Amino acid sequence: METRALETFAQEYKQLLEDELRRLVEKLKAPPIIKESMIYSLEAGGKRIRPLLLFATLDAFGMNPKKGLLAAAAIEMIHTYSLIHDDLPSMDNDDLRRGKPTNHKVFGDAIAILAGDALLTYSFEVISQLPTDVFSADTKLKLVIEMAKAAGTEGMVGGQVADMEGEAKSLTLQELEYIHIHKTGKLLGFSVLAGGIMAGANQEQLHNLSGFAHHLGLAFQIQDDILDLVGNEEIIGKPVGSDTTNLKSTYPQLLTLEGARTALEDQITSAKENLERTGLNTQLLSEITDLVASRDH
Amino acid sequence: METRALETFAQEYKQLLEDELRRLVEKLKAPPIIKESMIYSLEAGGKRIRPLLLFATLDAFGMNPKKGLLAAAAIEMIHTYSLIHDDLPSMDNDDLRRGKPTNHKVFGDAIAILAGDALLTYSFEVISQLPTDVFSADTKLKLVIEMAKAAGTEGMVGGQVADMEGEAKSLTLQELEYIHIHKTGKLLGFSVLAGGIMAGANQEQLHNLSGFAHHLGLAFQIQDDILDLVGNEEIIGKPVGSDTTNLKSTYPQLLTLEGARTALEDQITSAKENLERTGLNTQLLSEITDLVASRDH
Repeated sequence: METRALETFAQEYKQLLEDELRRLVEKLKAPPIIKESMIYSLEAGGKRIRPLLLFATLDAFGMNPKKGLLAAAAIEMIHTYSLIHDDLPSMDNDDLRRGKPTNHKVFGDAIAILAGDALLTYSFEVISQLPTDVFSADTKLKLVIEMAKAAGTEGMVGGQVADMEGEAKSLTLQELEYIHIHKTGKLLGFSVLAGGIMAGANQEQLHNLSGFAHHLGLAFQIQDDILDLVGNEEIIGKPVGSDTTNLKSTYPQLLTLEGARTALEDQITSAKENLERTGLNTQLLSEITDLVASRDH
Repeated sequence: METRALETFAQEYKQLLEDELRRLVEKLKAPPIIKESMIYSLEAGGKRIRPLLLFATLDAFGMNPKKGLLAAAAIEMIHTYSLIHDDLPSMDNDDLRRGKPTNHKVFGDAIAILAGDALLTYSFEVISQLPTDVFSADTKLKLVIEMAKAAGTEGMVGGQVADMEGEAKSLTLQELEYIHIHKTGKLLGFSVLAGGIMAGANQEQLHNLSGFAHHLGLAFQIQDDILDLVGNEEIIGKPVGSDTTNLKSTYPQLLTLEGARTALEDQITSAKENLERTGLNTQLLSEITDLVASRDH
């Protein structure tokens, strides 16, 4: 298999994904306003890190990533629904996301809630319709079950609940990890796991892919916290750590900035060790890992 | 097969369903508050008409209704999520449902939104885990797809959007039917269709079951509108039809009360004709149909 640089790979599949997302919503026979609302948030941009992980995992198995397009679209729908609901006034009450007005600011709270519901619901239909000539019903059913687990109370929703409950108190490192492993880690993990399931990975490979995704998810979150803090430092012009009024627990707060940077390196190392143990051609996944550690936004 | 009266049948399966719903949520490893919120609304009562339709359809095929318990639970979870989200302040803003405070009045808007999300997500996991020794992966995948269609923008969510958009204007009979066919009809229809899919119905039987569910759904809604009006008449003590300030379109408003009663009879007749054409033992389904037409609440 030809080795491709991540950048070219990412560009190609991001475009494929975004075209597919639009196509999937446009073909629905439904009131125009709900389709507009769904497309608005699906097209709000972002790194598409979850679909990219899925495509790169399929690539690692020597499988054509295009075969997984509907699964990638389903995962991005779930991620998008979670952003729409998280931004609502009764949740995080955010007016802007990536510089654009949030869904409910444009369409109103009711349509935003329903657009989230619609994307979540549609994701299960979409992933069930992966090409029949490539994937068995057993495989697709396994994807449905794992996606529901990753997105539900034992995954993303559970993490969101714990995050809300933890907002106004200081957390232990264990509590902080519970939140991140569930709120962001489980769906990131499913993106990798789904690729493994689709490619017919054996139990040991699935185990190592899960381990990889676990550490990558934590790395992602630690880097998020570091960027928040470094960003804040530049903006507010005071030394890191002097702001004790923000009650929201973060890795730098619990570990110091240096400690958080060490923890990030540890997670990246563990992620890559898991990758190597799969015995696959994991160049793209490895590059994604480096990207997570070094990203500046 | 022994012929059982609907009342006994309904009591037995309602209990089984309610025990199963509680068991399914209790076993989740998740923050207690979200499980409490899910159980609160799942246990808020109701006629459990959708699960009952599923059980009665399996019975019509001579299949043990217990085999469909997880599918019935999944459908009731979707129905319950839709009630929780519909009751939110930004939607219908209802403080009470069946005499109990609505979910968001007890748990707050954020947890109510997340409990709805959680129930919707879980429903797909639950229906995917129907007993493997009875149902093939193909059958379960078909259920996932049809459930997503019934619940999504081409079904229930689409109907809810149209309902909200139509609230402040007078609708044509066609527009009113679009709302009801989608908002309530599609999930009622899936309850029957799911039974047929699970029992291995042939295409003609599925067609007739769909027709049955379509007419039953409309009958259900027309009776709802009639009850609303008759209830209002008794409460407000003025003749039917004198209240022109309520802009919400209803069947009696569009057809007169007598016209609505005739339409109800027509739907019941059509529903039963479809049932008869299945050639199955549809006594229970027929009794459910009579119940819909004659219910007083």
